[in-house]
Amino acid sequence: MPTRVYLDWNATTPLRPEARAAMVAAYDLVGNPSSVHAEGREARRLVEEARAALAAAVGALPRNVIFTSAGTEANALALSPGLRGPSGGPVERLLVSAVEHASVLAGGRFPADRIGLIRVTRSGVVDLEDLKAELKDGPPALVSIMAANNETGALQPVAEAASVAHGAGGLLHVDAIQVLGKIPFDINKVGADLATFSAHKIGGPKGVGALVMAEGIVGLEPVLRGGGQELSRRAGTENVAGVAGFGAAVKAALQALPEDVKRMATLRNRLENGLRGVARVTVFSDDVERLSNTLLFTAPDLKAETAVIGFDLEGIAVSSGSACSSGKVQPSHVLSAMGYDPAVAQGAVRLSLGWSTGPEDINRALEAWRKLGNTLLKG
Amino acid sequence: MPTRVYLDWNATTPLRPEARAAMVAAYDLVGNPSSVHAEGREARRLVEEARAALAAAVGALPRNVIFTSAGTEANALALSPGLRGPSGGPVERLLVSAVEHASVLAGGRFPADRIGLIRVTRSGVVDLEDLKAELKDGPPALVSIMAANNETGALQPVAEAASVAHGAGGLLHVDAIQVLGKIPFDINKVGADLATFSAHKIGGPKGVGALVMAEGIVGLEPVLRGGGQELSRRAGTENVAGVAGFGAAVKAALQALPEDVKRMATLRNRLENGLRGVARVTVFSDDVERLSNTLLFTAPDLKAETAVIGFDLEGIAVSSGSACSSGKVQPSHVLSAMGYDPAVAQGAVRLSLGWSTGPEDINRALEAWRKLGNTLLKG
Repeated sequence: MPTRVYLDWNATTPLRPEARAAMVAAYDLVGNPSSVHAEGREARRLVEEARAALAAAVGALPRNVIFTSAGTEANALALSPGLRGPSGGPVERLLVSAVEHASVLAGGRFPADRIGLIRVTRSGVVDLEDLKAELKDGPPALVSIMAANNETGALQPVAEAASVAHGAGGLLHVDAIQVLGKIPFDINKVGADLATFSAHKIGGPKGVGALVMAEGIVGLEPVLRGGGQELSRRAGTENVAGVAGFGAAVKAALQALPEDVKRMATLRNRLENGLRGVARVTVFSDDVERLSNTLLFTAPDLKAETAVIGFDLEGIAVSSGSACSSGKVQPSHVLSAMGYDPAVAQGAVRLSLGWSTGPEDINRALEAWRKLGNTLLKG
Repeated sequence: MPTRVYLDWNATTPLRPEARAAMVAAYDLVGNPSSVHAEGREARRLVEEARAALAAAVGALPRNVIFTSAGTEANALALSPGLRGPSGGPVERLLVSAVEHASVLAGGRFPADRIGLIRVTRSGVVDLEDLKAELKDGPPALVSIMAANNETGALQPVAEAASVAHGAGGLLHVDAIQVLGKIPFDINKVGADLATFSAHKIGGPKGVGALVMAEGIVGLEPVLRGGGQELSRRAGTENVAGVAGFGAAVKAALQALPEDVKRMATLRNRLENGLRGVARVTVFSDDVERLSNTLLFTAPDLKAETAVIGFDLEGIAVSSGSACSSGKVQPSHVLSAMGYDPAVAQGAVRLSLGWSTGPEDINRALEAWRKLGNTLLKG
């Protein structure tokens, strides 16, 4: 049987060898990082090294990095009423773009009637004019916009959104989960007051995330209370091995970034051209700047559910939008927000590339596509 | 340098080989359990195997097991207003014993004015008469009592508490984190409506926990919202390797339980007698049934902070109560609740044993104690 081809890196990224090694090494440390004895201090050291690595990668101070159990928990923690900082707040309402991840759309600790949606364009880019209009009246808002969309890859105008939010006395949270390791991301250059990250999107382990705050941001309400871990901002014994794996993945991903991006862009473009060669393919957000690894497409009469299974049977792992809907193939809220009707959204297939994707993976995917095209696209 | 002696198993347990192997194996699976392709299904299978293992271990149905990022998150999730089930509810207030873990004392989603404290006796056992009195008036309560205390090891009358709670139209949550793998624990035999567990206390990884519910319990409000994971009761990509490690640790711990308990009890008693041989030692809760692996003691003029450091320098990892206070040596709220004054609490040292503790560990600890006694107890 030929090797499987994995083209679902936006759902989860195979573990980088550096992360794996760091985690296996951490298994030999028995200590709880909160314990004062040598074993505890050694575990603490691992956690703090990872914290320093992530902080350095995104331009933050280590003390402003809070490790969580995933991007979802990081987003829930970030969306806290009462946040304030040098640029604005205390925030009393939340404005999120219509293409945010479900964990942001859930709104954190804001009551439903204090949450507003910001429109996106047909290309899947946040409409800054709509943001300005929403911010004009009302109390200071926390604005939450992702740096790049997880389905289309479309980059979002987060630096501009920061100016707009701050101009209105608000704050900006950036869900930067998709961009870490794929484009340079510095919270200060962006002007983000809060940013969230997930280890498993960069080749770290599943089950680890982080909230990073700009210096001077205060008023964060914990989601998990109890022990004094994470400077009392997130209770619970630390996932020491996982955090160590996250730190190692951050270092490896950032070192590989320039080379990875070039390689992925070349392969993605070849994949895109190949798809178009077989059928009248629509690539979503192809008229705006996208992450170099992401490709969301459809074709007339394509059914995503059938396509995902068809590709799978050919040995290729692809997805229909986000994985976070628990196995269900649902029409994408992202494409709906972009103005596509549900029939189109139900035909969207996502191919995403990563650090070990090579030319042969693309060949295999296109081969499968040519084969599947005959049946999938017969209409 | 002689090997270190680890006697802080209640803070965290060294990883069991079975858990380590399961986790390393899981690293080869790239899939997200929510993805429909083969990689996703394989990851899903690992998660469901672990769910079945934990469910079987505690007498629950797999669908009533919710994996979380730690015991702390499991406790936060369990303490949900509105819970109801065959025995009582919907609960409108929370009653917790005064010796609960900080994550339970934090009260979950109950407002501060809906949380009451249940007294414990001088021996550290929950006072059922006080529970009855508190339950007599007022709306249905969720009662939260740990199966065994993490500092003293004192077993709690959870089955009796279940009857009392149900009799008053309420529900019982049992923080069973300390007892899993140390005494048999079946939610049905206890009558617990909800129970919480932590992987790292039984030789699984840090950063994984679980809430288990009895059949028919409904009304649980999620803490983390977003994706549909864990049947929409806990959003966030699953810590697949960690969950697999938890499952493997559960199986290993339960298989080893009868032998472990016998061995630990013998060693703990030898340790206790040895401590008493050197000084006028007080062992807390020694007049009630305790976990066989736990020993919390003090002696006249003993300072816990100095003792922990002194033992550490002798190569022995011990603690002063719970590790969850982030490196700070604070007087234990458990001993305060038992009626001891702060001076006594500040002198309490906890020694806890585990699956690889052997006679030589006890010899080394007693040797250190004899040596330290000269300086620590000079008064």
